[in-house]
Amino acid sequence: MRILVVNANTSDIVTEKVAAQARASASPGTEIVAVTGTFGARVIGTRAEQAIGEHSALALVAKHATGCDAVVIAVSYDTGVRAARELLPVPVIGMTEAGLLTACMLGGRIGIVTFGRRVRPLYQELVTSYGLDARIAGWRTLESTAAYQRGAHDALDRELIDAANDLVERDGAETVVLTGAVMAGVPARLQAQVPVPLVDCIACAVRQAELLHHLGCPKPSVGSYAAPAGRELIAVDEAIAAAFANAGKT
Amino acid sequence: MRILVVNANTSDIVTEKVAAQARASASPGTEIVAVTGTFGARVIGTRAEQAIGEHSALALVAKHATGCDAVVIAVSYDTGVRAARELLPVPVIGMTEAGLLTACMLGGRIGIVTFGRRVRPLYQELVTSYGLDARIAGWRTLESTAAYQRGAHDALDRELIDAANDLVERDGAETVVLTGAVMAGVPARLQAQVPVPLVDCIACAVRQAELLHHLGCPKPSVGSYAAPAGRELIAVDEAIAAAFANAGKT
Amino acid sequence: MRILVVNANTSDIVTEKVAAQARASASPGTEIVAVTGTFGARVIGTRAEQAIGEHSALALVAKHATGCDAVVIAVSYDTGVRAARELLPVPVIGMTEAGLLTACMLGGRIGIVTFGRRVRPLYQELVTSYGLDARIAGWRTLESTAAYQRGAHDALDRELIDAANDLVERDGAETVVLTGAVMAGVPARLQAQVPVPLVDCIACAVRQAELLHHLGCPKPSVGSYAAPAGRELIAVDEAIAAAFANAGKT
Amino acid sequence: MRILVVNANTSDIVTEKVAAQARASASPGTEIVAVTGTFGARVIGTRAEQAIGEHSALALVAKHATGCDAVVIAVSYDTGVRAARELLPVPVIGMTEAGLLTACMLGGRIGIVTFGRRVRPLYQELVTSYGLDARIAGWRTLESTAAYQRGAHDALDRELIDAANDLVERDGAETVVLTGAVMAGVPARLQAQVPVPLVDCIACAVRQAELLHHLGCPKPSVGSYAAPAGRELIAVDEAIAAAFANAGKT
Amino acid sequence: MRILVVNANTSDIVTEKVAAQARASASPGTEIVAVTGTFGARVIGTRAEQAIGEHSALALVAKHATGCDAVVIAVSYDTGVRAARELLPVPVIGMTEAGLLTACMLGGRIGIVTFGRRVRPLYQELVTSYGLDARIAGWRTLESTAAYQRGAHDALDRELIDAANDLVERDGAETVVLTGAVMAGVPARLQAQVPVPLVDCIACAVRQAELLHHLGCPKPSVGSYAAPAGRELIAVDEAIAAAFANAGKT
Amino acid sequence: MRILVVNANTSDIVTEKVAAQARASASPGTEIVAVTGTFGARVIGTRAEQAIGEHSALALVAKHATGCDAVVIAVSYDTGVRAARELLPVPVIGMTEAGLLTACMLGGRIGIVTFGRRVRPLYQELVTSYGLDARIAGWRTLESTAAYQRGAHDALDRELIDAANDLVERDGAETVVLTGAVMAGVPARLQAQVPVPLVDCIACAVRQAELLHHLGCPKPSVGSYAAPAGRELIAVDEAIAAAFANAGKT
Repeated sequence: MRILVVNANTSDIVTEKVAAQARASASPGTEIVAVTGTFGARVIGTRAEQAIGEHSALALVAKHATGCDAVVIAVSYDTGVRAARELLPVPVIGMTEAGLLTACMLGGRIGIVTFGRRVRPLYQELVTSYGLDARIAGWRTLESTAAYQRGAHDALDRELIDAANDLVERDGAETVVLTGAVMAGVPARLQAQVPVPLVDCIACAVRQAELLHHLGCPKPSVGSYAAPAGRELIAVDEAIAAAFANAGKT
Repeated sequence: MRILVVNANTSDIVTEKVAAQARASASPGTEIVAVTGTFGARVIGTRAEQAIGEHSALALVAKHATGCDAVVIAVSYDTGVRAARELLPVPVIGMTEAGLLTACMLGGRIGIVTFGRRVRPLYQELVTSYGLDARIAGWRTLESTAAYQRGAHDALDRELIDAANDLVERDGAETVVLTGAVMAGVPARLQAQVPVPLVDCIACAVRQAELLHHLGCPKPSVGSYAAPAGRELIAVDEAIAAAFANAGKT
Repeated sequence: MRILVVNANTSDIVTEKVAAQARASASPGTEIVAVTGTFGARVIGTRAEQAIGEHSALALVAKHATGCDAVVIAVSYDTGVRAARELLPVPVIGMTEAGLLTACMLGGRIGIVTFGRRVRPLYQELVTSYGLDARIAGWRTLESTAAYQRGAHDALDRELIDAANDLVERDGAETVVLTGAVMAGVPARLQAQVPVPLVDCIACAVRQAELLHHLGCPKPSVGSYAAPAGRELIAVDEAIAAAFANAGKT
Repeated sequence: MRILVVNANTSDIVTEKVAAQARASASPGTEIVAVTGTFGARVIGTRAEQAIGEHSALALVAKHATGCDAVVIAVSYDTGVRAARELLPVPVIGMTEAGLLTACMLGGRIGIVTFGRRVRPLYQELVTSYGLDARIAGWRTLESTAAYQRGAHDALDRELIDAANDLVERDGAETVVLTGAVMAGVPARLQAQVPVPLVDCIACAVRQAELLHHLGCPKPSVGSYAAPAGRELIAVDEAIAAAFANAGKT
Repeated sequence: MRILVVNANTSDIVTEKVAAQARASASPGTEIVAVTGTFGARVIGTRAEQAIGEHSALALVAKHATGCDAVVIAVSYDTGVRAARELLPVPVIGMTEAGLLTACMLGGRIGIVTFGRRVRPLYQELVTSYGLDARIAGWRTLESTAAYQRGAHDALDRELIDAANDLVERDGAETVVLTGAVMAGVPARLQAQVPVPLVDCIACAVRQAELLHHLGCPKPSVGSYAAPAGRELIAVDEAIAAAFANAGKT
Repeated sequence: MRILVVNANTSDIVTEKVAAQARASASPGTEIVAVTGTFGARVIGTRAEQAIGEHSALALVAKHATGCDAVVIAVSYDTGVRAARELLPVPVIGMTEAGLLTACMLGGRIGIVTFGRRVRPLYQELVTSYGLDARIAGWRTLESTAAYQRGAHDALDRELIDAANDLVERDGAETVVLTGAVMAGVPARLQAQVPVPLVDCIACAVRQAELLHHLGCPKPSVGSYAAPAGRELIAVDEAIAAAFANAGKT
């Protein structure tokens, strides 16, 4: 099967990291196609950028999803996940959504590590929107941007380990989710230094995308995720126009 | 003062209705500037269209908010409200948000009338995102599209009255909010036939925008609504680029 | 228009402070009539005093609301707000209710500063009763009573600034509400030292009272806020008896 | 021991019914002293009357609680329960609070039968204030006032049985609480016709008052239920003044 | 009346402590019969042991409840309470359930002291299962196992007092519940050093069991607590088989 | 990999159905080992049976999990899932838990179909225990036991289709979960007649078990799911004793 990994940021560095981890996490035989946003923020980090990013994610899936069996949203605000899920005939899953729901299956309350106090409310709103508030043990927010640079980042690693352990010790977290697409692959590297599972959202998202594909549930034909057939839009890019035009046709 | 009324739909009919009601509702001396979306859905009615609409609303405020003292989002999903609130130096309020919070001040639980089963989940998610689930008495959803045609719509009026009364009688609603920008002005017309206040979201939003302006609270300089200064975006329209470039400069 | 500002405490000092701030906050042309309780606690600060205060607030509005277009409850427990809202034909709003709901329109989670650990549970119960728990970022409680003395209170100002900043930094508050009628006017004075909006409950309440008056929603004729017509009471004061006798007559 | 049963209504009929059931429910050796309100509504049935009733309940306990070991609030809005609990050195329990918490011990979700649509919101707010929303299976509201007349009321009995059975069948209630002081004694009479326990709030309250007395927990010396010592009130009745003056003295 | 006190742990030391406190707490004339588990953990302290303990508790009540008027579950996870409540014709109450619901009647939010971080999630899940999350002020968890040894434990007493006071001071607890069967009797001893009521779960459970017995509510004949009549089980112990065989027969 | 499918019921018919569907759902190369309870209810359908079943499930995994890479609990109350997850070194997932969390990834609110009003509270408690109340659109409960007979059951199929469609139409469900191990395979057969995805819990559980195995998260070494090392139990069956003895040893 083929999974489209959508990074609505307009910088390649995260796409590469994510694609590598996606490939490492996927089942044998799963092909990963990773695409990067063509307009909007280099790295989405504000509400206004997130609004543009939702459109950008939609444009990306409209252009690239044909021939793919599932889509993974690889921005940790799950940018565009609901819109893309509605528009496309294949399963779409957000990386944070996948990480959190998979963590639920490990049992107990979840600690969450986010980056940047400015955007922590966005993550909190995301968790609320998934109805998962009751599953959260606590939050830790780091300000480091080291993960966006290439190469090792030992200081950040130490901060991550400390944050995770503090969530375990003080908040009783029984799993810890590291949010952020740049965290792809990091949980495996740091796992030995944390006594509860560290969840890798990209790994979860790729595997859950495979799972949803294999389950083979049909696209709903009614409700808010049914194909948006017969809609009228103007001045949207060609791929989006085509996706709407084809929506609901089998 | 001057209020920008933002309709991210790409059809004028609703803008006209809304602008008229906004002018009728405003204080003497308040000027209403109403703008219509330039790309996206004629009438936003799906999740994918909503995602495009958020971008569209942002483009509209970026282009037209200069010289305005407050912004009203005149699409009933409050399309783009959080993004615009972050980007702009002036208060931004959503019409549904304003209607619900004003209804809270009237006391008791709120009945909500929405249009179209397909989008009811979007309204439910909106209410949850405002933390107002505990204030809702019940929901009724009508399928009529008559409100988008010009002229009287007696059958729809009857449906609205019945829905409101049913919310009062069976669900114990103590106020009723009619969602939908096309409902601007309708509550006043039908009020006599409903025994509890019918809330007009556009009237509430215009008045709350005035109120927020007069309160004079400063723009926060930290947190998720601080101006997004020093951000890097590519390939966005000129007005958005300029708004980001100016963000945080006084 | 004329707004009745109701202080069910039986000491004038707070009434004066509140009335001054109410006048400063009101629109041109709004007249403020402020009244003080005639029985009960000097300053309501316990549950038993609050129970007496509810009756006192009702007696005040029964006596003084005639000729007023709206009522502001100027005790921060919103003492008597629901009872007065039911009894009177005009809008009634509590100062804390107004502050919290207005803060919601500024976006994000709200930090709350209260005075006196003993009464903090009353504020928590109030927030719960408004269905707003999900909007609260955190609480800070000060023990100072300096605000009840005339003159400057620099030490308290410093405590308030510290509490507000701590709510922002540690709890992620995006606005801060200072409860307490004696805080009227303080937010404006301290705003420059706090990076998020400081909400003045009296200013909000006065402006929201104006707004509700101008919206012109009718008194409900059914439900728990309908006029209590045809009721039988004994041994209540003349004004209350008259208000009940007139309830529901237009 | 001696239990004070407080009816803040100003009509004797309910007091008599309640006192009889209280005596029937009490342990051997428990003396029941029942008192009736001296000011306010004949039968509390509105928010404004409830506000007056809270004061009335406080006046009653201030005058009559001396020499009593516990207090039962015998108005089904638990009128004044929190204020009296604070003021008095002995346990105070509301009849509805007692009925609901006792029902919790029987297991499963609770169905609630109330009287009068107008006041149903007051009961809902009461349940929320006790933090028990999650335990409620459903609500039924009857409009009959027959219970206030002396003599049998077969039609009402039939309505009650139907409401209770409907709560069991459609809402999955595993116990049913009949609210309303006039319902004292009714559950025992109708129990045979309902397949789940019918809870008698007065019986529960009397027994819980005994239990709390025998447990012997001390009055808290801090917090919102500590004795309101050193307070300053004016123009309150003699008994209340004396109770405040004695508060906190042992 | 006779109360069966069920300790599904397989060690006598806690049974003895609990039985002594149960006798000390009971009304005159109440006989306490205390039994100890015959299989499973010495002291239940893990999820797997709790699962075995539920079966063990059921086996104990099946064997010993005949002739008893009520059952108290004397393991602080309320091990087996729902199963036993269903199987038996008499009231069954858990010690922690009783402590929490009784604490609710004292007013305000509850602080909880538990033993062992490993099992704190079990207590949190228990509180959630009772629908009481909104009543909890905070948690403190001690690691001491001293309470399982005979004799005085001054160091633990000091830890308990500190934890309780900290709950009062920092979390605003208005009562404190000490969980753990081995805490039976401890609250009375330490009460003088804590300014809010310390709740003894065993004392509450015994008294509530008496109360439920005297209320005389019938066993439900429908729903999840109806007697499990006509069921087919294999290879269960004789007492359980007999209890099922007799279930629903009067 | 090898998955142990645990049916704590003591009748083979469900085991066979479930095993067949598990094999049909699994990836190529996954071996399914299905085991049936050796003591307790033929078909768990009451709280007391569920308590015995938890022990039974634990005994089954203790005996059969060696050599397996993951465990699926194939009783729809997820009987024993938390206990087994703690005891074993491999992932353990409940069928209903898997169905619900997978349904979350499809988007929107979930409708749930259960069998038997008597046990519906158990499912509701299960959903609450997973923190998923906010994701549930509604419930329907069927009384048919036809699914336990071999052969086609057209009448039940019709009931299932009607219940699912009713959940979609009246409650706005966007996916529908059919609970009950006997429903394994049914969703695929009926899917064409329902316009939203019908979720097969066994299929989800098997695939999620594979996913969790491949993710390779370590067993936590602290918290409530850490291996229960160094515990002391008596009179438990050999396999359980051995599992405890080995717990925490690698």
